[in-house]
Amino acid sequence: MEQSQLFIKIALHAWEMNIKRTTAIFDSLTDEQLLTEIAPGRNRGIYILGHLVAVHDMMLPLLDLGQRQYLQLDEAFISNPDKAIADLPSAQDLRAYWTNINQILREQFNKLTPEEWLQKHTMITDEDFAKEPHRNRLSVLLNRTNHNAYHQGQLAWAKNK
Amino acid sequence: MEQSQLFIKIALHAWEMNIKRTTAIFDSLTDEQLLTEIAPGRNRGIYILGHLVAVHDMMLPLLDLGQRQYLQLDEAFISNPDKAIADLPSAQDLRAYWTNINQILREQFNKLTPEEWLQKHTMITDEDFAKEPHRNRLSVLLNRTNHNAYHQGQLAWAKNK
Repeated sequence: MEQSQLFIKIALHAWEMNIKRTTAIFDSLTDEQLLTEIAPGRNRGIYILGHLVAVHDMMLPLLDLGQRQYLQLDEAFISNPDKAIADLPSAQDLRAYWTNINQILREQFNKLTPEEWLQKHTMITDEDFAKEPHRNRLSVLLNRTNHNAYHQGQLAWAKNK
Repeated sequence: MEQSQLFIKIALHAWEMNIKRTTAIFDSLTDEQLLTEIAPGRNRGIYILGHLVAVHDMMLPLLDLGQRQYLQLDEAFISNPDKAIADLPSAQDLRAYWTNINQILREQFNKLTPEEWLQKHTMITDEDFAKEPHRNRLSVLLNRTNHNAYHQGQLAWAKNK
Protein backbone atom coordinates (compact mmCIF):
# COMPACT_ATOMS: atom_id res chain seq x y z
CA MET A 1 0.00 0.00 0.00
CA GLU A 2 1.21 3.45 -0.86
CA GLN A 3 2.34 5.48 2.15
CA SER A 4 -0.23 8.26 1.73
CA GLN A 5 -3.04 5.71 1.43
CA LEU A 6 -1.86 4.14 4.69
CA PHE A 7 -2.09 7.51 6.48
CA ILE A 8 -5.70 7.91 5.32
CA LYS A 9 -6.56 4.33 6.21
CA ILE A 10 -5.33 4.92 9.78
CA ALA A 11 -7.31 8.14 10.14
CA LEU A 12 -10.49 6.55 8.76
CA HIS A 13 -10.00 3.52 11.00
CA ALA A 14 -9.80 5.78 14.08
CA TRP A 15 -12.99 7.57 12.94
CA GLU A 16 -14.88 4.32 12.39
CA MET A 17 -13.73 2.81 15.70
CA ASN A 18 -14.99 5.88 17.51
CA ILE A 19 -18.34 5.93 15.72
CA LYS A 20 -18.74 2.24 16.56
CA ARG A 21 -18.08 2.80 20.26
CA THR A 22 -20.44 5.78 20.45
CA THR A 23 -23.13 3.80 18.61
CA ALA A 24 -22.70 0.93 21.07
CA ILE A 25 -23.37 3.33 23.95
CA PHE A 26 -26.48 4.79 22.27
CA ASP A 27 -27.70 1.23 21.59
CA SER A 28 -27.19 0.30 25.25
CA LEU A 29 -29.33 3.21 26.47
CA THR A 30 -33.14 3.12 26.55
CA ASP A 31 -35.11 6.12 25.24
CA GLU A 32 -35.93 6.90 28.86
CA GLN A 33 -32.23 6.95 29.77
CA LEU A 34 -31.57 9.26 26.81
CA LEU A 35 -34.14 11.68 28.21
CA THR A 36 -32.46 11.82 31.64
CA GLU A 37 -29.66 14.24 32.57
CA ILE A 38 -26.36 12.35 32.56
CA ALA A 39 -25.24 14.26 35.65
CA PRO A 40 -27.19 16.83 37.67
CA GLY A 41 -27.61 19.97 35.56
CA ARG A 42 -25.65 18.51 32.64
CA ASN A 43 -26.74 17.46 29.15
CA ARG A 44 -29.12 14.64 28.45
CA GLY A 45 -28.09 11.80 26.17
CA ILE A 46 -30.68 12.89 23.61
CA TYR A 47 -29.02 16.29 23.36
CA ILE A 48 -25.63 14.72 22.70
CA LEU A 49 -27.23 12.40 20.12
CA GLY A 50 -28.88 15.30 18.25
CA HIS A 51 -25.75 17.42 18.60
CA LEU A 52 -23.50 14.72 17.13
CA VAL A 53 -25.91 14.12 14.22
CA ALA A 54 -25.97 17.86 13.45
CA VAL A 55 -22.18 18.26 13.71
CA HIS A 56 -21.59 15.23 11.49
CA ASP A 57 -24.20 16.50 9.04
CA MET A 58 -22.31 19.80 8.88
CA MET A 59 -19.27 17.88 7.68
CA LEU A 60 -20.94 17.33 4.30
CA PRO A 61 -20.77 20.99 3.14
CA LEU A 62 -17.61 21.64 5.20
CA LEU A 63 -15.77 18.90 3.32
CA ASP A 64 -17.55 19.79 0.06
CA LEU A 65 -19.12 16.33 -0.04
CA GLY A 66 -22.78 17.24 -0.32
CA GLN A 67 -25.70 19.16 1.11
CA ARG A 68 -27.03 19.15 4.66
CA GLN A 69 -29.55 16.41 5.42
CA TYR A 70 -30.74 17.54 8.85
CA LEU A 71 -30.63 21.32 8.88
CA GLN A 72 -33.74 21.29 11.10
CA LEU A 73 -31.66 19.99 14.02
CA ASP A 74 -29.46 23.07 14.34
CA GLU A 75 -31.85 25.15 16.40
CA ALA A 76 -32.27 22.56 19.14
CA PHE A 77 -28.83 20.95 19.09
CA ILE A 78 -26.33 23.57 17.89
CA SER A 79 -27.69 27.08 18.46
CA ASN A 80 -29.24 26.34 21.84
CA PRO A 81 -28.20 24.42 24.95
CA ASP A 82 -30.06 21.35 26.17
CA LYS A 83 -33.54 21.93 27.58
CA ALA A 84 -33.90 25.34 25.88
CA ILE A 85 -36.08 23.88 23.12
CA ALA A 86 -38.94 21.70 24.32
CA ASP A 87 -40.06 20.26 20.99
CA LEU A 88 -37.41 17.73 19.95
CA PRO A 89 -37.48 14.92 17.39
CA SER A 90 -38.12 11.50 18.94
CA ALA A 91 -35.20 9.41 20.18
CA GLN A 92 -36.19 6.83 17.60
CA ASP A 93 -35.90 9.33 14.75
CA LEU A 94 -32.57 10.67 16.03
CA ARG A 95 -31.15 7.15 16.31
CA ALA A 96 -32.07 6.59 12.65
CA TYR A 97 -30.50 9.92 11.62
CA TRP A 98 -27.28 8.94 13.46
CA THR A 99 -27.02 5.69 11.51
CA ASN A 100 -27.86 7.41 8.24
CA ILE A 101 -25.52 10.41 8.45
CA ASN A 102 -22.57 8.20 9.38
CA GLN A 103 -23.36 5.91 6.46
CA ILE A 104 -23.51 8.86 4.04
CA LEU A 105 -20.17 10.15 5.37
CA ARG A 106 -18.62 6.68 5.11
CA GLU A 107 -19.60 6.39 1.44
CA GLN A 108 -18.24 9.85 0.66
CA PHE A 109 -15.01 9.32 2.64
CA ASN A 110 -14.29 6.09 0.80
CA LYS A 111 -14.35 7.92 -2.53
CA LEU A 112 -11.67 10.47 -1.60
CA THR A 113 -8.07 10.01 -2.69
CA PRO A 114 -5.17 10.97 -0.37
CA GLU A 115 -4.66 14.08 -2.48
CA GLU A 116 -8.31 15.05 -2.03
CA TRP A 117 -8.02 14.60 1.75
CA LEU A 118 -5.27 17.22 1.67
CA GLN A 119 -7.41 19.74 -0.18
CA LYS A 120 -8.80 22.67 1.74
CA HIS A 121 -12.13 22.53 3.49
CA THR A 122 -14.80 25.08 2.54
CA MET A 123 -14.47 27.38 5.56
CA ILE A 124 -10.99 28.65 4.73
CA THR A 125 -10.02 31.09 1.99
CA ASP A 126 -7.52 30.21 -0.74
CA GLU A 127 -5.23 32.86 0.69
CA ASP A 128 -5.22 31.47 4.22
CA PHE A 129 -4.92 27.90 2.95
CA ALA A 130 -1.78 28.83 1.00
CA LYS A 131 -0.22 29.86 4.32
CA GLU A 132 -1.73 27.04 6.41
CA PRO A 133 -1.95 23.90 4.26
CA HIS A 134 -2.72 21.72 7.29
CA ARG A 135 -6.23 23.22 7.45
CA ASN A 136 -7.59 20.62 5.09
CA ARG A 137 -10.22 17.87 4.97
CA LEU A 138 -8.02 15.47 6.92
CA SER A 139 -7.65 17.89 9.82
CA VAL A 140 -11.46 18.22 9.94
CA LEU A 141 -11.74 14.42 10.09
CA LEU A 142 -9.29 14.21 13.01
CA ASN A 143 -10.98 17.08 14.86
CA ARG A 144 -14.42 15.58 14.45
CA THR A 145 -13.13 12.19 15.60
CA ASN A 146 -11.93 13.90 18.77
CA HIS A 147 -15.21 15.78 19.11
CA ASN A 148 -17.01 12.46 18.98
CA ALA A 149 -14.65 10.95 21.59
CA TYR A 150 -15.22 13.97 23.87
CA HIS A 151 -18.96 13.40 23.99
CA GLN A 152 -18.50 9.63 24.11
CA GLY A 153 -16.72 10.08 27.45
CA GLN A 154 -19.78 11.92 28.75
CA LEU A 155 -22.23 9.39 27.31
CA ALA A 156 -20.36 6.59 29.06
CA TRP A 157 -21.68 8.08 32.30
CA ALA A 158 -25.29 7.75 31.15
CA LYS A 159 -25.04 4.02 31.70
CA ASN A 160 -26.08 2.59 35.03
CA LYS A 161 -23.30 2.26 37.57
CA MET B 1 6.14 20.47 2.37
CA GLU B 2 6.24 16.82 1.42
CA GLN B 3 2.84 15.12 1.55
CA SER B 4 3.80 12.56 4.19
CA GLN B 5 5.20 15.30 6.41
CA LEU B 6 1.92 17.15 6.11
CA PHE B 7 -0.02 14.08 7.31
CA ILE B 8 2.19 13.87 10.40
CA LYS B 9 1.96 17.59 11.04
CA ILE B 10 -1.85 17.38 11.04
CA ALA B 11 -1.86 14.42 13.45
CA LEU B 12 0.60 16.12 15.82
CA HIS B 13 -1.38 19.35 15.66
CA ALA B 14 -4.55 17.49 16.70
CA TRP B 15 -2.62 15.88 19.59
CA GLU B 16 -1.20 19.20 20.79
CA MET B 17 -4.54 21.00 20.53
CA ASN B 18 -6.12 18.32 22.67
CA ILE B 19 -3.37 18.37 25.29
CA LYS B 20 -3.69 22.13 25.43
CA ARG B 21 -7.45 22.01 26.01
CA THR B 22 -7.15 19.33 28.69
CA THR B 23 -4.38 21.30 30.40
CA ALA B 24 -6.56 24.41 30.37
CA ILE B 25 -9.28 22.48 32.21
CA PHE B 26 -6.84 21.11 34.81
CA ASP B 27 -5.48 24.64 35.29
CA SER B 28 -9.00 25.98 35.83
CA LEU B 29 -9.73 23.46 38.60
CA THR B 30 -8.59 23.92 42.20
CA ASP B 31 -7.00 20.99 44.04
CA GLU B 32 -10.21 20.75 46.03
CA GLN B 33 -12.26 20.48 42.84
CA LEU B 34 -9.90 17.76 41.59
CA LEU B 35 -10.62 15.79 44.76
CA THR B 36 -14.40 15.93 44.24
CA GLU B 37 -16.40 13.41 42.22
CA ILE B 38 -17.28 14.96 38.85
CA ALA B 39 -20.73 13.37 38.99
CA PRO B 40 -22.24 11.27 41.80
CA GLY B 41 -20.42 7.94 41.96
CA ARG B 42 -18.16 8.82 39.01
CA ASN B 43 -14.42 9.51 38.83
CA ARG B 44 -12.75 12.43 40.50
CA GLY B 45 -10.65 14.83 38.43
CA ILE B 46 -7.51 13.67 40.24
CA TYR B 47 -8.12 10.14 39.05
CA ILE B 48 -8.43 11.27 35.45
CA LEU B 49 -5.28 13.37 35.86
CA GLY B 50 -3.25 10.44 37.22
CA HIS B 51 -4.79 8.10 34.64
CA LEU B 52 -3.87 10.36 31.72
CA VAL B 53 -0.30 10.80 33.02
CA ALA B 54 0.11 7.02 33.33
CA VAL B 55 -1.40 6.30 29.89
CA HIS B 56 0.78 8.95 28.25
CA ASP B 57 3.81 7.61 30.12
CA MET B 58 3.06 4.15 28.72
CA MET B 59 3.37 5.62 25.22
CA LEU B 60 7.17 5.88 25.69
CA PRO B 61 7.85 2.11 25.65
CA LEU B 62 4.83 1.42 23.40
CA LEU B 63 6.28 3.70 20.72
CA ASP B 64 9.83 2.58 21.49
CA LEU B 65 10.76 6.13 22.51
CA GLY B 66 12.12 5.53 26.01
CA GLN B 67 11.52 4.08 29.43
CA ARG B 68 8.60 4.70 31.75
CA GLN B 69 8.96 7.73 34.04
CA TYR B 70 5.99 7.19 36.36
CA LEU B 71 5.58 3.44 36.76
CA GLN B 72 4.50 4.04 40.37
CA LEU B 73 1.20 5.52 39.13
CA ASP B 74 -0.09 2.32 37.57
CA GLU B 75 -1.47 0.73 40.72
CA ALA B 76 -3.66 3.70 41.64
CA PHE B 77 -4.59 4.97 38.17
CA ILE B 78 -4.50 1.98 35.78
CA SER B 79 -4.93 -1.28 37.68
CA ASN B 80 -7.55 0.04 40.10
CA PRO B 81 -10.63 2.23 39.82
CA ASP B 82 -10.89 5.59 41.54
CA LYS B 83 -11.16 5.53 45.34
CA ALA B 84 -9.78 1.97 45.60
CA ILE B 85 -6.33 3.26 46.60
CA ALA B 86 -6.35 5.84 49.39
CA ASP B 87 -2.71 6.92 49.23
CA LEU B 88 -2.34 9.04 46.08
CA PRO B 89 0.35 11.50 44.99
CA SER B 90 -0.59 15.13 45.64
CA ALA B 91 -2.50 17.09 43.01
CA GLN B 92 0.51 19.40 42.82
CA ASP B 93 2.86 16.52 41.96
CA LEU B 94 0.45 15.07 39.40
CA ARG B 95 0.07 18.44 37.70
CA ALA B 96 3.87 18.61 37.35
CA TYR B 97 4.01 15.04 35.99
CA TRP B 98 1.35 15.95 33.41
CA THR B 99 3.40 18.88 32.12
CA ASN B 100 6.58 16.82 32.15
CA ILE B 101 5.35 13.69 30.38
CA ASN B 102 3.74 15.72 27.61
CA GLN B 103 6.97 17.66 27.14
CA ILE B 104 9.00 14.44 26.92
CA LEU B 105 6.57 13.04 24.36
CA ARG B 106 6.65 16.29 22.37
CA GLU B 107 10.45 16.18 22.12
CA GLN B 108 10.40 12.54 21.03
CA PHE B 109 7.58 13.02 18.55
CA ASN B 110 9.37 15.90 16.87
CA LYS B 111 12.36 13.65 16.15
CA LEU B 112 10.38 11.02 14.24
CA THR B 113 10.30 10.98 10.45
CA PRO B 114 7.08 10.06 8.56
CA GLU B 115 8.62 6.66 7.84
CA GLU B 116 9.26 6.10 11.54
CA TRP B 117 5.66 7.03 12.37
CA LEU B 118 4.59 4.18 10.10
CA GLN B 119 6.80 1.65 11.88
CA LYS B 120 5.16 -0.86 14.16
CA HIS B 121 4.60 -0.18 17.82
CA THR B 122 6.13 -2.57 20.37
CA MET B 123 2.96 -4.48 21.29
CA ILE B 124 2.50 -6.17 17.92
CA THR B 125 4.55 -9.03 16.46
CA ASP B 126 6.39 -8.74 13.15
CA GLU B 127 4.07 -11.41 11.78
CA ASP B 128 0.87 -9.56 12.70
CA PHE B 129 2.31 -6.25 11.55
CA ALA B 130 3.04 -7.70 8.12
CA LYS B 131 -0.68 -8.45 7.82
CA GLU B 132 -1.90 -5.24 9.51
CA PRO B 133 0.48 -2.39 8.65
CA HIS B 134 -1.93 0.21 10.02
CA ARG B 135 -1.09 -0.91 13.57
CA ASN B 136 1.81 1.49 13.79
CA ARG B 137 3.03 4.42 15.87
CA LEU B 138 0.71 6.85 14.09
CA SER B 139 -2.37 4.78 14.95
CA VAL B 140 -1.28 4.85 18.61
CA LEU B 141 -0.98 8.65 18.43
CA LEU B 142 -4.50 9.00 16.98
CA ASN B 143 -5.97 6.56 19.51
CA ARG B 144 -4.34 8.32 22.44
CA THR B 145 -5.52 11.70 21.14
CA ASN B 146 -9.04 10.29 21.21
CA HIS B 147 -8.50 8.79 24.66
CA ASN B 148 -7.48 12.22 25.88
CA ALA B 149 -10.56 13.82 24.26
CA TYR B 150 -12.81 11.19 25.88
CA HIS B 151 -11.66 12.12 29.38
CA GLN B 152 -11.58 15.82 28.49
CA GLY B 153 -15.33 15.62 27.90
CA GLN B 154 -15.76 14.27 31.42
CA LEU B 155 -13.38 16.82 32.95
CA ALA B 156 -15.37 19.64 31.37
CA TRP B 157 -18.14 18.69 33.81
CA ALA B 158 -15.87 19.21 36.82
CA LYS B 159 -16.10 22.94 36.27
CA ASN B 160 -18.77 24.89 38.09
CA LYS B 161 -22.02 25.27 36.22
